[in-house]
Amino acid sequence: MVLDKIVKPNDIKKLNNNELLKLSEEIRSFLIEHLSKTGGHLASNLGSVELTMALHLICDLPKDKIIWDVGHQSYTHKILTGRKDGFDNLRKYKGMSGFPKREESECDSFDTGHSSTSISAGLGYCWARELSKDDYKVISVIGDGALTGGLAYEALNNASRLKKSNFLIVLNDNEMSISKNVGGMSKNLERMRTSSGYIGLKDDIVSSLERIPNGNKYINFIRQTKSSIKTLIMPNMFFEDLGIMYLGPVDGHNVLEMVNTFNMALDYDGPVCVHVITKKGMGYEPAEKHPSRFHGTGSFEIETGLPEKSTNPGYTDIFSTVMRKMGDREEKVIAVTAAMAEGTGLRRFANMFPSRFFDVGIAEEHAVTFCAGLALGGFVPVFAVYSSFLQRAYDQVLEDVCLQKLHVIFAIDRAGLVGADGETHQGVFDISYLNSMPNMTIMAPKNKWELSDMMKFAVNYDGPIAIRYPRGEAYCGLEDNRNPIELGKSEVIHKGSRVVLLALGSMVKESLKALEILQSDGIDATLVNARFAKPFDKTILDDAAREYELIVTLEENVQAGGFGQQVMSYLNDIDYTGKYYNISVPDKFVEHGSTEQLFELLEIDYKSIARRIKEQLD
Amino acid sequence: MVLDKIVKPNDIKKLNNNELLKLSEEIRSFLIEHLSKTGGHLASNLGSVELTMALHLICDLPKDKIIWDVGHQSYTHKILTGRKDGFDNLRKYKGMSGFPKREESECDSFDTGHSSTSISAGLGYCWARELSKDDYKVISVIGDGALTGGLAYEALNNASRLKKSNFLIVLNDNEMSISKNVGGMSKNLERMRTSSGYIGLKDDIVSSLERIPNGNKYINFIRQTKSSIKTLIMPNMFFEDLGIMYLGPVDGHNVLEMVNTFNMALDYDGPVCVHVITKKGMGYEPAEKHPSRFHGTGSFEIETGLPEKSTNPGYTDIFSTVMRKMGDREEKVIAVTAAMAEGTGLRRFANMFPSRFFDVGIAEEHAVTFCAGLALGGFVPVFAVYSSFLQRAYDQVLEDVCLQKLHVIFAIDRAGLVGADGETHQGVFDISYLNSMPNMTIMAPKNKWELSDMMKFAVNYDGPIAIRYPRGEAYCGLEDNRNPIELGKSEVIHKGSRVVLLALGSMVKESLKALEILQSDGIDATLVNARFAKPFDKTILDDAAREYELIVTLEENVQAGGFGQQVMSYLNDIDYTGKYYNISVPDKFVEHGSTEQLFELLEIDYKSIARRIKEQLD
Repeated sequence: MVLDKIVKPNDIKKLNNNELLKLSEEIRSFLIEHLSKTGGHLASNLGSVELTMALHLICDLPKDKIIWDVGHQSYTHKILTGRKDGFDNLRKYKGMSGFPKREESECDSFDTGHSSTSISAGLGYCWARELSKDDYKVISVIGDGALTGGLAYEALNNASRLKKSNFLIVLNDNEMSISKNVGGMSKNLERMRTSSGYIGLKDDIVSSLERIPNGNKYINFIRQTKSSIKTLIMPNMFFEDLGIMYLGPVDGHNVLEMVNTFNMALDYDGPVCVHVITKKGMGYEPAEKHPSRFHGTGSFEIETGLPEKSTNPGYTDIFSTVMRKMGDREEKVIAVTAAMAEGTGLRRFANMFPSRFFDVGIAEEHAVTFCAGLALGGFVPVFAVYSSFLQRAYDQVLEDVCLQKLHVIFAIDRAGLVGADGETHQGVFDISYLNSMPNMTIMAPKNKWELSDMMKFAVNYDGPIAIRYPRGEAYCGLEDNRNPIELGKSEVIHKGSRVVLLALGSMVKESLKALEILQSDGIDATLVNARFAKPFDKTILDDAAREYELIVTLEENVQAGGFGQQVMSYLNDIDYTGKYYNISVPDKFVEHGSTEQLFELLEIDYKSIARRIKEQLD
Repeated sequence: MVLDKIVKPNDIKKLNNNELLKLSEEIRSFLIEHLSKTGGHLASNLGSVELTMALHLICDLPKDKIIWDVGHQSYTHKILTGRKDGFDNLRKYKGMSGFPKREESECDSFDTGHSSTSISAGLGYCWARELSKDDYKVISVIGDGALTGGLAYEALNNASRLKKSNFLIVLNDNEMSISKNVGGMSKNLERMRTSSGYIGLKDDIVSSLERIPNGNKYINFIRQTKSSIKTLIMPNMFFEDLGIMYLGPVDGHNVLEMVNTFNMALDYDGPVCVHVITKKGMGYEPAEKHPSRFHGTGSFEIETGLPEKSTNPGYTDIFSTVMRKMGDREEKVIAVTAAMAEGTGLRRFANMFPSRFFDVGIAEEHAVTFCAGLALGGFVPVFAVYSSFLQRAYDQVLEDVCLQKLHVIFAIDRAGLVGADGETHQGVFDISYLNSMPNMTIMAPKNKWELSDMMKFAVNYDGPIAIRYPRGEAYCGLEDNRNPIELGKSEVIHKGSRVVLLALGSMVKESLKALEILQSDGIDATLVNARFAKPFDKTILDDAAREYELIVTLEENVQAGGFGQQVMSYLNDIDYTGKYYNISVPDKFVEHGSTEQLFELLEIDYKSIARRIKEQLD
């Protein structure tokens, strides 16, 4: 095995060309085999094997800085930097992260997880290097999907100021982000890929090359190698409009061709974009055919590519069904996603109502302000988005939707702990930041039926309204508790005495189990399904303040600014003299692991809840 | 006066060409005269007089939708829609807003205030119109400065999907945002302005036109009018790369030329960008010469352009001086701004240390992630930003800075109520959203010396750290209270009994005056300068919980997630049995007015504070 020779950074440089070819095959088999057991981001990593190898061949790690945009494509990088063994526990509790982590390796130079940050971070490194007269390489690897994010453009717009030192931007173009890519930019890339690529030199290119520093060198290089490396410099394009030298397109599965082009690009003073064409899922047929399904996958059977275990319907599935039905009944409902049609469950809506479906690309800011415009035009837009990604549109939610009191529905998926994706994906801040926004309404369903009922409530509401629901299986208990949703009203699940648990969303299920433990200890606690985090139910608090010696709030969100703190403020306002206890996510970034493990770690699982409440009652 | 004929929307259409010319002159005089008394955004409005007139000539208001990006350039629009009289009370309490407001007029179709939203909102209107088979015009007016914001690019990237109906994007290019414009994009615009503009038709343009729908019509139109309207269609540029038809550049001070071009653009099916060249401050020499000074101005003397009253140094001035000195002493300090070199006080640093100064354009997201890269490269970046604009980088502060525990300093200016700019500019959310971010430290100075001391503390600190300070005059009281800054430690200003006021930042000054009133009523309250919102001083709370019957927190920030709620949570944790009272900004958007008026309105002025505390003690 060639792979056995790779035990530490830079080992790849000792391999000959034949071994390199073998290595790429072995890495693919390694990834398929390991990910079939652990799950993980398969398609993007199969697509970037050779690209990563080429970068490692030209880099001296950890001195040089490679920044992986989003970071889910960093598996080969992890293999090549001595972390092969980590794949046995990939994305597991205390195991290796699925994203670059500076704490994990000094070869990881920037922690990522969210899209479109790599060029900004890379520019930071570049200017630091220039000011400190250092000489390491800086390379940002960004996908064509991440290029739809405004942050990437802001960075590109700032790149041209860098004139004296080099900055290599590798555009890893696989013609899609997670879903199929959208927008004018992707058409632009398509034109670059298909039009005059892979052809010879034109006179106007020669003359434009002659005008740039070292231009003749490139002309000769291209003249000599054009038939083999098929490189073409095309002037007057998007990147050049922004003052960035463009090289490409290059075959992203040909290591030596990339090494040559990268070296040429690194000779240039200033920012250079090398456009590399790769194929998502490359080398594994099921992933090539269904790259979206293999974007982030659970364990699967290698031969068929089918998931190992069928899972029960998740909240996303419920949302998907509700939206499909709603699309039929309510002609004014529009669905908007930021490159997450599959992940958020909007694909079926998209297929049935294509004219009322908008995938805006990885562009959460635009999605929200676009929704504001749709609402003003008389429609009811539903922006389906992961909690941690809605963070990217904080200002637009506040200024464009809440300030104008517009009827926009935020369907916030992955709200709460998400498990294997870890720190960057935990959706534990949304209640806090939405709570501080005037005019916002926030709901969270206790089970699958309530998600459906809340969606219907939201469509008939008028104003900014958010529904947050967690990743994973939808809770099917408490089927009979289906009182109509009323603005700001909670629902009593069980009436006991002494202590009342005011649980929000996912915490109802957990609290119900905690109730059993408490009951076995002789404590018959009341359980209230809060339903609304904002406006929360004041009437029930007025009653509770009189009836109970302990009021507990429970939420899958950080404490600061969360549901509990608002309840506590109200209890303070009404001069409640009993005890109040807050159960929420502590003030720290939460690592990856199964949600069960994380619940235990954070002491918000039903056992911990029961224990913590008992302690309060002692 | 021609202006007298303009009393309601569409009145402008009754004027002849001669009257139009007079009208533009009269509007300029009107603006200069009124703004010299009330203050306001002068330069941008003088620049867009003719542009606004041209739009009103082709529009039917309020049916048609004009969306003003940022919105500070909407004064002529206000004049032309029957709001002339509003200028007597422009930006004053209960007077006319300085920005478009749907509540103010049905001719205002989108509330703005923050940059780069207009194309997204316009696209929302466009699709709503198409789906509802309506036929109003949609026009977004965006400045070249606002184009540096990623949100604008996200929207442009999504515009090309619009094929069947028209969307007019007017690029109001005055070669600057608020400061002089930056980046590759601005160079690109410069190229459009200067290179082949204002010349005749070229063969390749004709042939590319022949390929678009109605192309011949444009060819003929351009052939007929090119000498007079000087319009040129340039293919292969930034906008066309994104699938957006481009027309221009057009003289933005020639009403009829613009009307012709706008009409031509509106004939096209799909998004069209008309590039209009205007001059900021046009027609008023002091503003033409110093557009930055006249971006937002106070009252001034018309003849000289000089401010009517000299103001005492503000917190911005103090920050400016500290940064200049710091630049000398600390070679690792880098200053970053998002198009606000003047506003944030970084101009002097920029002049003295140009290599360590970065104006990234209106690109707050990039600014923050760029700072993260600089920090990793061994530098100490200071991002000076207004509180309400840092909202635009929520996700980057959380994911790129806090998650990686990077030493980035956020100098948050305009934190608290800002006065005349109103809702969109009030900086009353930063403590809340920063509080919920793990690893963040938040400080607020009581007076000018403390801002200086805190900056020094921040530079020597290691990790994400924010200093928030309000707009306006820096407090010069409490000069003798200058104990060294220690992480998480507060400072006792006055020791009394019964009640303790824990005041954050700007509220120390207000509380000090409240103390006098309380004293005259026989209450000798303790006043503590909190200094740190996060981590706050627990030791003093432990003591306070024992000593006082009432603990009051005061902050110029919303209650949800603010400083007070964190204190209250801690008091709850330590089983404090006394009273707690929270003084903060209520959960609503705060209108424009003087900060004094707003303090009274929100009952956070010293008189209200004293009254509210007395009520609690009764």
